[in-house]
Amino acid sequence: MPEATIQMPTAADAAWMARALQLAIHGLYTTGVNPRVGCVLVKDNQLIGEGWHERAGEAHAEVMALRDAERRGHDVKGATAYVTLEPCAHHGKTPPCAEALINAGISRVVAAMADPNPLVAGKGFALLQAAGIAVAAPLMAAEAEALNVGFVKRMRLGLPWVRLKMAGSLDGRSALANGQSQWITGPEARADGHRFRARAQAIITGVGTVVADDPQLTVRGVDAPTGQTGQPLPRIAPLRVVVDSQLRTPTSANILRGGGLIATASVDPIKTAALQAAGAEIVVLPSVDGRVDLDALLRHLAQRGTNEVHVEAGAQLSGSFIKADLVDELLLYMAPTLLGSDARGWFDGLNLMTLDQKVLLQFQDVRMVGPDLRIIARAVK
Amino acid sequence: MPEATIQMPTAADAAWMARALQLAIHGLYTTGVNPRVGCVLVKDNQLIGEGWHERAGEAHAEVMALRDAERRGHDVKGATAYVTLEPCAHHGKTPPCAEALINAGISRVVAAMADPNPLVAGKGFALLQAAGIAVAAPLMAAEAEALNVGFVKRMRLGLPWVRLKMAGSLDGRSALANGQSQWITGPEARADGHRFRARAQAIITGVGTVVADDPQLTVRGVDAPTGQTGQPLPRIAPLRVVVDSQLRTPTSANILRGGGLIATASVDPIKTAALQAAGAEIVVLPSVDGRVDLDALLRHLAQRGTNEVHVEAGAQLSGSFIKADLVDELLLYMAPTLLGSDARGWFDGLNLMTLDQKVLLQFQDVRMVGPDLRIIARAVK
Repeated sequence: MPEATIQMPTAADAAWMARALQLAIHGLYTTGVNPRVGCVLVKDNQLIGEGWHERAGEAHAEVMALRDAERRGHDVKGATAYVTLEPCAHHGKTPPCAEALINAGISRVVAAMADPNPLVAGKGFALLQAAGIAVAAPLMAAEAEALNVGFVKRMRLGLPWVRLKMAGSLDGRSALANGQSQWITGPEARADGHRFRARAQAIITGVGTVVADDPQLTVRGVDAPTGQTGQPLPRIAPLRVVVDSQLRTPTSANILRGGGLIATASVDPIKTAALQAAGAEIVVLPSVDGRVDLDALLRHLAQRGTNEVHVEAGAQLSGSFIKADLVDELLLYMAPTLLGSDARGWFDGLNLMTLDQKVLLQFQDVRMVGPDLRIIARAVK
Repeated sequence: MPEATIQMPTAADAAWMARALQLAIHGLYTTGVNPRVGCVLVKDNQLIGEGWHERAGEAHAEVMALRDAERRGHDVKGATAYVTLEPCAHHGKTPPCAEALINAGISRVVAAMADPNPLVAGKGFALLQAAGIAVAAPLMAAEAEALNVGFVKRMRLGLPWVRLKMAGSLDGRSALANGQSQWITGPEARADGHRFRARAQAIITGVGTVVADDPQLTVRGVDAPTGQTGQPLPRIAPLRVVVDSQLRTPTSANILRGGGLIATASVDPIKTAALQAAGAEIVVLPSVDGRVDLDALLRHLAQRGTNEVHVEAGAQLSGSFIKADLVDELLLYMAPTLLGSDARGWFDGLNLMTLDQKVLLQFQDVRMVGPDLRIIARAVK
């Protein structure tokens, strides 16, 4: 059989795909290891079913949409399915979505983007085409990728998307020389920061911050999501990670309450046992000059299914992530204030000798959050 | 005679005042000591003449508009004049505009705002009313004040509006530890900075910057304005000012070419004579701990008719202006880059001991200028 061609989506397809993308966003805090995916079923130019992936291990967006159409009493035979990601072709925790669409009698599938995993990209499309289903893609691929920026990076590179959060004054200071830092930015910025924590699967901080500030680094004040039948849907709490090369984390640290991961270069059996008894998981990673290799930490997290990492640390660890070129996105909250050059800076240890070595970024999003300015800038790779 | 009432402008007046404000902007680089003012003459709902103040010493906006109407062959009797500032009542370099409007037979005057000088505010209105002219005000007063933010402040407080420019990285650094700083921001930001220089009547820098970088601090690359009959209109070059408490400015400094003012605490006759011979004007000002008192400098500049001051200096002088609470507006250009905590900061010498002492600002305008971010923030007084 000759290989079928992937068609070009039409302008009329765009409005339905936009709806599918909106649906996918509902999964922002709950899909965990899985991508956020939305699906819309359309027949005779009418929406007859829609759905999104809610939680890893549960039904994918396509199946949710098929169920929704059934609930509404619609016959999906001959319908077009708009889905924000190529339908899967493999048996994972659930049967492949391509098969579900074939069995349901869908006649056309429009996908925003192919599967980002190079090993399986196109297999879902091929399965659909082999069953005589017309396939069109890509459509709004940039938007679809943005929604799953971490999943896409992990599939392609085996690394999570790293978002580094920093907050402080307009002149790049996070604390006074004497350490005072609460609060420079306002409650709106802090609440916004919690929403970014919530979408990550792991939050990384350094032992210095744990010792100095004893933060919980939990997600607080973010509305609990609801599923598409209105059921409350628990968020997946991000894994809290302490980079602690020498196991200095106190066993009483708030971050260990409810469990936490300590990434270390130390194999000290007594400290390890004490921290494990306090509820911590300990992972010993390769080190460089006695310090945990951050690239190895990120690969470890990716292997555990971490798509997006949220780094919320002090100037030393934050600077190390920057210096190692491991940050994809900076999330900065700037209060309308100045603290002056003697106050503490954001990124220690860069030690540039020439301006050629400067860290290259690109502004992605700049907006007010309450009285503060929020800047999202991405690394230019 | 009972005092006449200032009327409320109507909604219909707003469109004409908007036009008058647009005209006033033409004077941004040329009115010097005078405010930027626009005027529109309207009769039977038709624009019959318009004008703006071009240069100190020349005709005010009202007279320009009357002349324009005459050129167009219109009879201004019974017309309404829309003017962005209360018409003047005093004989300065030109006869009072209120008189000109009276003599021309204008029947109604709508003013955006009263004269900001508390000693003469309302006198123009009273003169018009005494002649039987209806007066309505204020209208779009915030916009009118914004256009003359320096003139208004000088009239009210005897101080110029101080805009402090700083450029650097997103983490608040203007140079590497070794001093390298050219170029962190891009050509678009530098060109934008020249437009801000152009609207100031004085540009202040410190002797440290003069010694280290030998800048010209002239206005370059800003389009020459044209007058309302199409004639080229020379910009008024801002006075370049060096804060140089000990007269360390080299006689060969670029900033002295074409003249410059050195504000000093030193009365050293030899250095004074040498710098004067090199073209500098020297002003000896009160000092605090051997350093020029910046408040005294600003009052001196205000007395010379400086409405807007542009500070473009290093971290030390910039920090001193901030610390002395003399800055009204920060103009920051942030390149999408990080230089790290060991690089040079923006504002030295703030030395805050508690966060209560932090400098309070408010974001006014945030936008992209080429690849860089421009932030205008104002001091909360």
